[in-house]
Amino acid sequence: MDAISVIRTKRDRGELTPEQIDWVIDAYTRGEVADEQMSALAMAILLNGMNRTEIARWTAAMIASGERMNFRALSRPTTDKHSTGGVGDKITLPLAPLVAACGAAVPQLSGRGLGHTGGTLDKLESIPGWRAHLSNEEMLNVLDTTGAVICAAGDGLAPADKKLYALRDVTGTVEAIPLIASSIMSKKIAEGTGALVLDVKVGSGAFMKTIEDARELASTMVALGTDSGVRTVALLTDMSTPLGLTAGNALEVRESVEVLAGGGPQDVVDLTLALAREMLDAAGLKDADPEKALSDGSAMDVWRRMISAQGGDPDASLPTAREHHIITAPASGVLTRLDAYDVGVAAWRLGAGRARKEDPVQAGAGVELHAKPGDTVTEGQPLMTLHTDTPEKFDYALKALPDAYDIAPTGTPFAPLPVVRERIA
Amino acid sequence: MDAISVIRTKRDRGELTPEQIDWVIDAYTRGEVADEQMSALAMAILLNGMNRTEIARWTAAMIASGERMNFRALSRPTTDKHSTGGVGDKITLPLAPLVAACGAAVPQLSGRGLGHTGGTLDKLESIPGWRAHLSNEEMLNVLDTTGAVICAAGDGLAPADKKLYALRDVTGTVEAIPLIASSIMSKKIAEGTGALVLDVKVGSGAFMKTIEDARELASTMVALGTDSGVRTVALLTDMSTPLGLTAGNALEVRESVEVLAGGGPQDVVDLTLALAREMLDAAGLKDADPEKALSDGSAMDVWRRMISAQGGDPDASLPTAREHHIITAPASGVLTRLDAYDVGVAAWRLGAGRARKEDPVQAGAGVELHAKPGDTVTEGQPLMTLHTDTPEKFDYALKALPDAYDIAPTGTPFAPLPVVRERIA
Repeated sequence: MDAISVIRTKRDRGELTPEQIDWVIDAYTRGEVADEQMSALAMAILLNGMNRTEIARWTAAMIASGERMNFRALSRPTTDKHSTGGVGDKITLPLAPLVAACGAAVPQLSGRGLGHTGGTLDKLESIPGWRAHLSNEEMLNVLDTTGAVICAAGDGLAPADKKLYALRDVTGTVEAIPLIASSIMSKKIAEGTGALVLDVKVGSGAFMKTIEDARELASTMVALGTDSGVRTVALLTDMSTPLGLTAGNALEVRESVEVLAGGGPQDVVDLTLALAREMLDAAGLKDADPEKALSDGSAMDVWRRMISAQGGDPDASLPTAREHHIITAPASGVLTRLDAYDVGVAAWRLGAGRARKEDPVQAGAGVELHAKPGDTVTEGQPLMTLHTDTPEKFDYALKALPDAYDIAPTGTPFAPLPVVRERIA
Repeated sequence: MDAISVIRTKRDRGELTPEQIDWVIDAYTRGEVADEQMSALAMAILLNGMNRTEIARWTAAMIASGERMNFRALSRPTTDKHSTGGVGDKITLPLAPLVAACGAAVPQLSGRGLGHTGGTLDKLESIPGWRAHLSNEEMLNVLDTTGAVICAAGDGLAPADKKLYALRDVTGTVEAIPLIASSIMSKKIAEGTGALVLDVKVGSGAFMKTIEDARELASTMVALGTDSGVRTVALLTDMSTPLGLTAGNALEVRESVEVLAGGGPQDVVDLTLALAREMLDAAGLKDADPEKALSDGSAMDVWRRMISAQGGDPDASLPTAREHHIITAPASGVLTRLDAYDVGVAAWRLGAGRARKEDPVQAGAGVELHAKPGDTVTEGQPLMTLHTDTPEKFDYALKALPDAYDIAPTGTPFAPLPVVRERIA
């Protein structure tokens, strides 16, 4: 077995054998297959594809590269959620404590933002004292005592994926559906959750720009999960416009707390509840009432305990940016479009995101929206506020926004996209 | 400008801009673009192609990565040949002195064998004392005094190609026509020859297996040469069966000397003369008579001076292998097929070639043929003799040969392929 013959097989549109897949993942993890060989293979996979059999084996080989966790000692059923990433997607923050408040255990291993999409850990780190990195023992302890934990995945889980993900990021091979599906699912299956709900974003602010690609990714992942004994459901949800009214770390924590307090933007509440119902249903908790858990404060109670258990102070004031810039509406009318990607890029350029893994993020930076598609706006009213500690970045951020929105004459009919577009099980 | 955006352009079937090409070649040569990024780009180029404009710019950028030589101080016109590589392809050895004997200067920068194809430098190094590595000054001196020089290309010539070639070799990206064409032509144009004849091999023992691929490669290279002011012609020549009766280093030197002495196998003589006529014609020496230069010993005289000038002893006995194994004909009849690739792999496994660049080769190892397609053979007569210093390799070499030939009943009609199949100018 050698790397070149594996690369050639896929390059020439052949099907990789189970032995080739097992060997190449193991040899890459051990450093016997070099980065430049794996990146050529990744490009061949991106352009020539893998079938379901190959993807399942590839996922299994990545799981086998590391340890597997299990939550069988817990008294509650486990249920997890994964989002493919979007702009303003803070849903994990209210969702995990909400589902825990309804009786499930939610082990939420999360990531950091890269590019124009935010990362859950970056957001929570804006809470003074909060720690993302827990030992397996600490993680299980927080999960057992509070019902939910949101933390960084340990190094032992699917190390092949960790290495491959970093490689894909610098070699233009991120956007391969077989590699995205196996990357996500190898971590979730190795984590040992009993049920999993996938939030597959579709639209300008998502990695999947078309509903067809989103469907293909979702059904691939649902099949992988189901075949591994994880009850898996996917929702295809809209990411043509940002979720809620904020994109940025502390800005999104603040909005999440509003949702937990029974308020918050309607789209964030709707998606949080839709995902909560799916997670509870997949966990076998059919009688749970997540709407009640939001309104009666029990989700908020779990949030406070969960943040405290990881060193955070749920009552501390959140950081705010030192400088602001307001963009006003150039005309009166109906806001018919507000582009998720453009807003995500602006938030990123303001300091909310990072260009390279090792860059720091600004807790207070980001974009605050004062209107959403369908809203009526008046010429001169604030449309967005840009926040940053580094005002020299305003110009660069503004360059992302000239085509970010459309305002149509008052009375123009507007048909909003539903938050949840499709369900795949 | 960044590597990922260049990779994405080609991945998404776009056309690389001149600026992208110049930047990526320069940044790769300087080490700013990493191997894993270049290999992903190479795979995208292999699968999605480059148009003629892109290939020309890519070639120019590789030339610009290093020094350019020129032979304007020579009194004779320069003319060079490049073969895409085959089995038993010793043509450079008799050809360079032959063309020099007819009045041209032949600066033949050559390479080593890799895989199943032999390398000109490996062959000549079986002559005791002969040196492949010359300084630019030594090279010009040998060329000026003898009319021909065969030596290794200096490190200063197209260093981007040197680095990229080594990378392609380990990443399954050798077989990309745009990259093969630009690799060959960048070195030949940087070398500064006035005329160039390309011997593009086609058949099982060549990199191009089909006449269509060979045509595409040949016409791409002819256009690149012509556009750079080099008079360029290509011959598509047969590589379905080995050239001549030997594949191996000293074995091929011996056969080349036979040709220079006026004898040798007819296919080697025919191809040597066909290429010599093209080289002389491209150099403007229309009245030269290469057949006479072979028969009157003047080509042999140049050979002896050229070998001596590089430290070799033209009268020394050549090394022979310590062990032999004879394969006999299993039936009587007409030999209708003798596969170039299989013979090449057997010679390689016997020790004539190398698996990795740093491996040594055996001077005496290889395969000697006792019959060629079209010949009548008698059951039990020798078909091939395998030569090696390491007899434990006989079994491994024999495994390459079970389907290497066909013997048909006596009287079966046999239509040989011509040595030169097409000419592209």
